Amino acid sequence: MKALRFTNNQLGLQDIDLEFLFEDEARVRVILAGICATDIEIVKGYMDFEGTIGHEFVGVVEECSSKPELVGKRVVGEINAACGKCVWCLKGLGRHCPERTVLGIMGRDGAFAEYLRLPPENLHVVPESITDRNAVFVEPLAAAFEILDQVNLVPDVPVLVIGDGRLAQLIVRVLTQHGCRIEVVGVSEAKIERMKDMPQQVYLNEPPPAAAYSTVIEASGAPSGWDTAVKSVEPRGTIVLKSTYASEFDFNPAPLVINEVTVIGSRCGPFDKALAALDSGMRVSDIIDAEYPLEGYQEAFAKVNEPETLKVLFRL
Amino acid sequence: MKALRFTNNQLGLQDIDLEFLFEDEARVRVILAGICATDIEIVKGYMDFEGTIGHEFVGVVEECSSKPELVGKRVVGEINAACGKCVWCLKGLGRHCPERTVLGIMGRDGAFAEYLRLPPENLHVVPESITDRNAVFVEPLAAAFEILDQVNLVPDVPVLVIGDGRLAQLIVRVLTQHGCRIEVVGVSEAKIERMKDMPQQVYLNEPPPAAAYSTVIEASGAPSGWDTAVKSVEPRGTIVLKSTYASEFDFNPAPLVINEVTVIGSRCGPFDKALAALDSGMRVSDIIDAEYPLEGYQEAFAKVNEPETLKVLFRL
Repeated sequence: MKALRFTNNQLGLQDIDLEFLFEDEARVRVILAGICATDIEIVKGYMDFEGTIGHEFVGVVEECSSKPELVGKRVVGEINAACGKCVWCLKGLGRHCPERTVLGIMGRDGAFAEYLRLPPENLHVVPESITDRNAVFVEPLAAAFEILDQVNLVPDVPVLVIGDGRLAQLIVRVLTQHGCRIEVVGVSEAKIERMKDMPQQVYLNEPPPAAAYSTVIEASGAPSGWDTAVKSVEPRGTIVLKSTYASEFDFNPAPLVINEVTVIGSRCGPFDKALAALDSGMRVSDIIDAEYPLEGYQEAFAKVNEPETLKVLFRL
Repeated sequence: MKALRFTNNQLGLQDIDLEFLFEDEARVRVILAGICATDIEIVKGYMDFEGTIGHEFVGVVEECSSKPELVGKRVVGEINAACGKCVWCLKGLGRHCPERTVLGIMGRDGAFAEYLRLPPENLHVVPESITDRNAVFVEPLAAAFEILDQVNLVPDVPVLVIGDGRLAQLIVRVLTQHGCRIEVVGVSEAKIERMKDMPQQVYLNEPPPAAAYSTVIEASGAPSGWDTAVKSVEPRGTIVLKSTYASEFDFNPAPLVINEVTVIGSRCGPFDKALAALDSGMRVSDIIDAEYPLEGYQEAFAKVNEPETLKVLFRL
């Protein structure tokens, strides 16, 4: 099968056999797969992964010996494949399992290929009502929903979202649906326009005037976003940290202590809530800019690196 | 009166009149006052304060027009003098009042003087059972008790305390009394010995072997302590950040996101709980190394800057 692989520090289309990690894993034919910041980092060589990249997908199960009722079903998949036996797995937190592999990121071939494999317990069946172009967002949309599990957001209280990229777009949609009053710090007028009047206040290339937010979501991916978060959160407030930055930066945590601020690191989230929201009518496919076949991977990565681009998909 | 003041970037003993900020403030004759890291920072010129330094004290009220029943009482005092009217004050969080002054730190003369003034509502009467040499620790001891208000510490669960200085010593005493199993990362064998076998495991100049602590208290004041905290906390764990560092350092918060760690900045704490603990028999005066008269301020600051020194007091 065709697979887009990062090997020997180079990205290239290869013809390979589908890797089998465990006998009873489901085989999924990929329909659509999305390019995420982590894929861009891998391709820059910033991470230590070798193999087929990609982890956001929607596909159809073609083979599943341990759970044959899944065959023929359209699915999305949780990306951490855990041991199922350690204390983390028993707590329902397989994403912290020390033995885990991660689809297209760590020890497991990913979704930019004709087929992928995942344990059947990682798969969620997609309701008929959700189009492929919305379903492909379930993994990052779940990461946005994670915020609602981590902080108690009361409707109408202002929440500051820092960032206007892919993840920030999803966060703004999720928090708006939750009833929050959203204010956004962004760098691109074009990207903020694609938030469709959901933010009730926009700060373009400038921080808000006062440290007045009880909750700040940092999803910019830029060290300046961290700085803005620390300066905008009110005393005793909470910063939800969604950004993983490409490198170290200068930092003094003294303001966190003086203002008794809480910082919560936030990564993956609940697939069931993301699927339920899409099933109830939430739409996110409007942030897609382009689709490419796997053979167009060079154009796809060039497109996704353009400053105004949000989402780029591969259609298999 | 005599007062130890930092003015024109210089520390010196001066003869001044006691400053009056508001008519109804209590006048307190200082008995003992402790030197804290913040005082050392002020004297290095790292902070922007000019005036009489010092904020840890025990004294006797000599004058208080608005609350005459306090006169003659031995007291300790909360250091933030707030407006009493803003949203922060009305929430009981006057220490975040934007109009506040802070004893010996911001806009208000401090405790290294024969007399100080504070609003009467800042003062707590010290029970007879508590000696002056224990009472002088109420302010930093309250900061240690703050940890118990911020995280739910179950007895017998290991807690990692990073640091062996003044604040770490108090934290170890408070958490041991609470029933926690304490493990300590320190740099000085002599200082760790003064924790009197309370830690059940000590790591001297090395971090613990695994990221296995659900709660880590960083109280070292050194950037290496922050690094150890991030490496020692388990996924989904909590770092309570007590250290304010003198300068910026290189930092990448990615591990906080990947491991979904919570960082809680922690500053002042509940005076009533510190007083109740001392009244019930907790003793902390064993970490005092020396007492000096105000005239001996040069020796006092030389002593407190020696690597093995913990607490140095002024006796007025």
